[in-house]
Amino acid sequence: MPLQTSQPVQEDPIAAIATPLGVGALAVIRISGSGVLDIAQGLFRKSGHSDFQLRESKGFTAHFGRVYDRDGLVDEVIALVFRSPNSYTREDMVEFSCHGGPVVVRHMLQALYEAGCRPAEPGEFTRRAFLNGRIDLLQAEAIGEMIHARSESAYRTAVNQMQGKLSRKLEELRQRLVESCALLELELDFSEEDVEFQSRDELKLQLGQLQDEVKKLVDSYQHGRLLSEGVATVIVGKPNAGKSTLLNTLLGEERAIVSHMPGTTRDYIEECFVHEKTMFRLTDTAGLREAAEEIEREGVGRSYKKIGEADLILYMLDLSQPESLKESEVIREFRETYTHAKLIVIANKTDLAPDSTLRIERLRNETGCDVAGISAKQGEGIDRLLGLMSAMVEGLDKLHDASVLVTSLRHYVTLRNAGDAVENAQELLGAYAGTELIAFELRSALDYVGEITGKVVSEEVLNVIFDRFCIGK
Amino acid sequence: MPLQTSQPVQEDPIAAIATPLGVGALAVIRISGSGVLDIAQGLFRKSGHSDFQLRESKGFTAHFGRVYDRDGLVDEVIALVFRSPNSYTREDMVEFSCHGGPVVVRHMLQALYEAGCRPAEPGEFTRRAFLNGRIDLLQAEAIGEMIHARSESAYRTAVNQMQGKLSRKLEELRQRLVESCALLELELDFSEEDVEFQSRDELKLQLGQLQDEVKKLVDSYQHGRLLSEGVATVIVGKPNAGKSTLLNTLLGEERAIVSHMPGTTRDYIEECFVHEKTMFRLTDTAGLREAAEEIEREGVGRSYKKIGEADLILYMLDLSQPESLKESEVIREFRETYTHAKLIVIANKTDLAPDSTLRIERLRNETGCDVAGISAKQGEGIDRLLGLMSAMVEGLDKLHDASVLVTSLRHYVTLRNAGDAVENAQELLGAYAGTELIAFELRSALDYVGEITGKVVSEEVLNVIFDRFCIGK
Repeated sequence: MPLQTSQPVQEDPIAAIATPLGVGALAVIRISGSGVLDIAQGLFRKSGHSDFQLRESKGFTAHFGRVYDRDGLVDEVIALVFRSPNSYTREDMVEFSCHGGPVVVRHMLQALYEAGCRPAEPGEFTRRAFLNGRIDLLQAEAIGEMIHARSESAYRTAVNQMQGKLSRKLEELRQRLVESCALLELELDFSEEDVEFQSRDELKLQLGQLQDEVKKLVDSYQHGRLLSEGVATVIVGKPNAGKSTLLNTLLGEERAIVSHMPGTTRDYIEECFVHEKTMFRLTDTAGLREAAEEIEREGVGRSYKKIGEADLILYMLDLSQPESLKESEVIREFRETYTHAKLIVIANKTDLAPDSTLRIERLRNETGCDVAGISAKQGEGIDRLLGLMSAMVEGLDKLHDASVLVTSLRHYVTLRNAGDAVENAQELLGAYAGTELIAFELRSALDYVGEITGKVVSEEVLNVIFDRFCIGK
Repeated sequence: MPLQTSQPVQEDPIAAIATPLGVGALAVIRISGSGVLDIAQGLFRKSGHSDFQLRESKGFTAHFGRVYDRDGLVDEVIALVFRSPNSYTREDMVEFSCHGGPVVVRHMLQALYEAGCRPAEPGEFTRRAFLNGRIDLLQAEAIGEMIHARSESAYRTAVNQMQGKLSRKLEELRQRLVESCALLELELDFSEEDVEFQSRDELKLQLGQLQDEVKKLVDSYQHGRLLSEGVATVIVGKPNAGKSTLLNTLLGEERAIVSHMPGTTRDYIEECFVHEKTMFRLTDTAGLREAAEEIEREGVGRSYKKIGEADLILYMLDLSQPESLKESEVIREFRETYTHAKLIVIANKTDLAPDSTLRIERLRNETGCDVAGISAKQGEGIDRLLGLMSAMVEGLDKLHDASVLVTSLRHYVTLRNAGDAVENAQELLGAYAGTELIAFELRSALDYVGEITGKVVSEEVLNVIFDRFCIGK
């Protein structure tokens, strides 16, 4: 598929509302594609300029006037003209800024459909921007992430990615792969003459460096994912330990910045809250709340699955209940079973157990875990708990360059594939395998890296990416 | 208070999001007031033009670039520049079109606040547009109505009002009052010479015509209100007659275009649906549903209040129950008690009473009401019922010029006061009262009319009007 043509292609005219649905002062309706300047001209009358030709007007100029359909006046609008290739899609575009009522918007869209536009698919504007080479695929995805960002961290990683820092890093890796590949393939062309354009030792060194850098990026995903998607958190504990109360306390404390965003692309049904810059996603299922019960029984269930997917497990004890003999042992075992996630022990109901300091201290020593003594009901110790929860993300800041993080599963998987291919090439080199085998692996690594930025990408991947966008983007 | 100065006043810089909150491709953030071009210049870097001076750029030009705060890049934006007096507020304005995520928007606003803007009050942009004489008060209110319009009819009346048709009509009435007033006041100035600048008969004739026209406008409110606010509808009937089922059927049928808009200015808790172009507001209270019971008891209650406020009463009978002897008589009485509203009798459960045609026919003849035989459960007869319901609005179209309708309670009350004042003047004329008394009444009528368009208006009235607007308008 030919991508990133320097000469933009103008596809059929599309229209969509670009601002959120609802009641507001303004709504923006955008049209893009071949002939949209004519379409806009047909509907728009500039105030005080009866002979105004919208189709002749310069790009980046705005015009105040009225949109008419066959029933008469639709609305007073500002029409903002963009001319190919200087627009978001690199096609001709017009953005109408009309009054923000749902009925107004319906009429505006109807008028545009009747004039020849078709409704845009989700993400179709950004898809055109990508296909016309204005942005790469990473940047397109960053725009989607930015819109859906619910925390500071998610926003900041999206801004970095939109600026193209990760793109440039990957492009640099790609260039180095291209070089090695080219030299190997040159050798193949001259195979009868048995020349080496690059010493095998040198190639080995280069591939080793590449491998390290790919690995660093792959490893940054753990961090990037927490920043962009938030920390998947489960609370486990016996019934009546106070799990629901803690959930409500956490959500209540941060209610002002909790966001239940409509139209997000995530499917989870979960309660989210943001503390400092980090979002925590507390999966809100009966299963989650009853997890402890199920854990005590044998068998696998939804709760196990949730624990398996968690980044952070809040293991809750009830201080008002007498200490079981094996308390610390059970926690240690639990911790060893679920090593993938951070475990914080919560000793709840300090208000009902005023002399619990020793017990908490002992738990800390015997389990080696962070232990937070709290009263979920009274709201005591919550700040310290939130501090412990945030620490797991803050610690990561030191490990990775925050401006070049892998935040998407797609990038992670594809990069890992690229890393594997480089590793294979290394092994083949070590085994003195034929040049064509090594070149094949490097070519494959090259394709994987290209798939991330969109240099080489299938229609299918594009569909998956852009279907997650909202209409009008 | 001096209004509609020809030289716009530039007040302190304000900022607000102008598009609905939520997730979307774009959000528009607008700033207005003195110094906003400098503020924008401080935050904005045009792409590829390091020496670009936003403060120098022409009005109605757009610029692609980036907004920075002290933490770095906030977003890529389009900045649209408007220069006083050619803007919505007639002040200098900039509209930033940024990515539509809530966190992005928060950062954009924060950057603008730090740079010297303050958060705008609800309706503050439109208030400035009014105070700077760009639109009159009727048009300002029409913009609010347009944004909140939930039906075709409400939208259409708002469009008409925004175009200034009612404004022009009122201005014409005002001019005629001004003339009569001026002549009378001239007489007062020359009172020692006992001249009449206008014959009393002629004045009487003129005031009579004015009175008729004011009355026509006052009367149009009944119509305008139905179009703009929707038809307040109550369903009354005995328990188990099927009131809830009908409610659900009506809402279900039209669910696609039901709108529960957040941020509307109305306080009612009611279920709304739009049929054809008309919105029906079914007040959804337990009281409403139990109305019939309460009606059968003595006493006034919430249900009576609802019936008293209704435009349309759906009186529901249960065909599956044996016909009570006084059925028609009770309905006739009910109808005579509540003459203010249209009454439609609904004979429900036709599915359980297949031989009900005669009973329905008899009801129709004996009560003189529209009677709709339906099965709310099976969805039978609903179309015909909706037809009867819509007819009450369609009939009104013939009575009034739809483009000059009074749709707001404020206008209605103020116009009625104006009409009363003209009537007083007429009576004084008939009683050969002194010129100063007549002139006083006309002056008062003049003030009332001016209050509608905003020629004469108190701070208090403005507060009431603009507080109902959303932020950013």
